[in-house]
Amino acid sequence: MVDTRYHVAAIGNAIVDVLVHADDGMLERLGVAKGMMTLIGAEDAERIYAGLPPGIECSGGSAANTVVGVASLGGRAAYVGKVKDDQLGAVFGHDLRSAGVAFATRAAADGPSTARCFVLVTPDAQRTMLTYLGACIELTPDDVEEAVIAAAAVTYMEGYLYDPPLAKRAFLKAAEIAHKAGRMVSLSLSDPFCVDRHRDAFLDLVANHVDILFANEAELTALFRAADFDEALRAVRGHCRVAAITRGAQGSVVVAGDDVIVVGADPVPAVVDTTGAGDLYAAGFLYGFTHGRDLATSAMLGGIAAGEVIGHFGARPDRNLAELALARLGPSPFAPVA
Amino acid sequence: MVDTRYHVAAIGNAIVDVLVHADDGMLERLGVAKGMMTLIGAEDAERIYAGLPPGIECSGGSAANTVVGVASLGGRAAYVGKVKDDQLGAVFGHDLRSAGVAFATRAAADGPSTARCFVLVTPDAQRTMLTYLGACIELTPDDVEEAVIAAAAVTYMEGYLYDPPLAKRAFLKAAEIAHKAGRMVSLSLSDPFCVDRHRDAFLDLVANHVDILFANEAELTALFRAADFDEALRAVRGHCRVAAITRGAQGSVVVAGDDVIVVGADPVPAVVDTTGAGDLYAAGFLYGFTHGRDLATSAMLGGIAAGEVIGHFGARPDRNLAELALARLGPSPFAPVA
Repeated sequence: MVDTRYHVAAIGNAIVDVLVHADDGMLERLGVAKGMMTLIGAEDAERIYAGLPPGIECSGGSAANTVVGVASLGGRAAYVGKVKDDQLGAVFGHDLRSAGVAFATRAAADGPSTARCFVLVTPDAQRTMLTYLGACIELTPDDVEEAVIAAAAVTYMEGYLYDPPLAKRAFLKAAEIAHKAGRMVSLSLSDPFCVDRHRDAFLDLVANHVDILFANEAELTALFRAADFDEALRAVRGHCRVAAITRGAQGSVVVAGDDVIVVGADPVPAVVDTTGAGDLYAAGFLYGFTHGRDLATSAMLGGIAAGEVIGHFGARPDRNLAELALARLGPSPFAPVA
Repeated sequence: MVDTRYHVAAIGNAIVDVLVHADDGMLERLGVAKGMMTLIGAEDAERIYAGLPPGIECSGGSAANTVVGVASLGGRAAYVGKVKDDQLGAVFGHDLRSAGVAFATRAAADGPSTARCFVLVTPDAQRTMLTYLGACIELTPDDVEEAVIAAAAVTYMEGYLYDPPLAKRAFLKAAEIAHKAGRMVSLSLSDPFCVDRHRDAFLDLVANHVDILFANEAELTALFRAADFDEALRAVRGHCRVAAITRGAQGSVVVAGDDVIVVGADPVPAVVDTTGAGDLYAAGFLYGFTHGRDLATSAMLGGIAAGEVIGHFGARPDRNLAELALARLGPSPFAPVA
């Protein structure tokens, strides 16, 4: 096997978040479903922004948040995603590289601006997202660097990547490179609406290309059109090597062959903003998994990373996750299994 | 007297802040003085940004923070400042208008980009700033709208406005309009280094143009090259109608004619980031003053607004200041004196 230069290489929609406080009335006026991600066009983005309260801008993007989490835990990570060569694109690139993530995708010189996501955080700590994909639609298979993917233990993709038209081909190319190099491929289902939009493609991915699947209960149930979570769990068995399913305050369930591992949620003093919870769970899990830890420890690391990010405003960790995990679990998760 | 459309009209450098966590070693490597504002050029801004950790972007600018505070208290406020017609300029304008502040200064179509300030927050909650003035250098007297200034009870300016070459002429024009309309003029000294750069101009302003002066101990002492704070206090007496001097954890001192009013600081559970403390003190004070409250109540309102902003990351209030002041002082500060 070639050298593992990266523990995780991720492909995703490169997005800058605009975080605002909102109430249920605002969601109603906008006609958006709480907790979900709705795609919007450029004109809607202008109109909606004009009606929003003051915001703060932070780099986001589901898979980008995940690789920042992997890096914060001490792992080596790379990212593939498309920004435009504009101010927000520069912010996105800076925040990723300065977090220690390798990011070399060429920015688009023209076309739509860097993608923005309005993240409306309600007092119940739920986040509702409106995404303008902007330059993300410019990502193509040419942006996938073979050397990066072949050198990563796991190539990870967000389901949202199936929204821009060409990006799915980028992922399929990456999956092929990864498997040829004896690596693993991982997918997050992202959002129940996203699953509805791309169910057939995701079922094919899970059956034929994905080794490690991340989803929450609603996404997994939507994928298999199951009557309930138990039916969805039975359906996912055998479909991929590992399925890690998050259950919010109830922690997570990992299904791998005949094993079903249930891990409780990490204690969180106050849930402030759930943005990034799934992204950071994947970060912790993948860090553990690519460092040879067992599934239960990997799931616990996922819970610790998710617990950190929901304790504050924003989708990326405020604290060093390696120090946090060390304090919670002791040194063992950081010593790769011999 | 004409109708008071605005309680406060402010003129300032229109800046987007990039907030990052820093340690003393980083300040040393950058060669900047803790707690101060250092001006940097475009190339330095690029080089320094590349070496900074991930940040979050929030609209800032000293006087802009002040008018947002006035609006959050329920006052009517307007702002004059120059951004470029770029992404960060749009963010700055959105955040000001959506906070309820009138802002109609035309964005520059070309020239330097919207100004940025790297705000380095150290674990002791001190903030150290590096400012790239960008489009702020394009502010000219033509940007001062006579109708806005003449309709504002107080026209307020940050001392930092004397750094870009033409902006001081904008302020002098505004001061003339304000006084002709029977209004008051207010100045914040901004920063001891800023006072050193513009001492003669500021002494002239204070002696001949300013009715209400805001400063902290270090700035006032620097202005008069005084041996200590008491000497500085004696020097400022009679120079302007009102001088409101902040003293950090010791609260503030207001000097007006023969009156010296000492007000303690508002209790703050944990000081997280002192960025915006002086800006928000001015907001609370000017809100009270323009609503006919006495100097002690105005100073208390300043302390409440400053206390809110230093309790969290960022230079603008997270909470509605009117509700906060109502809870702390009761309804009286909000009923204008008959």
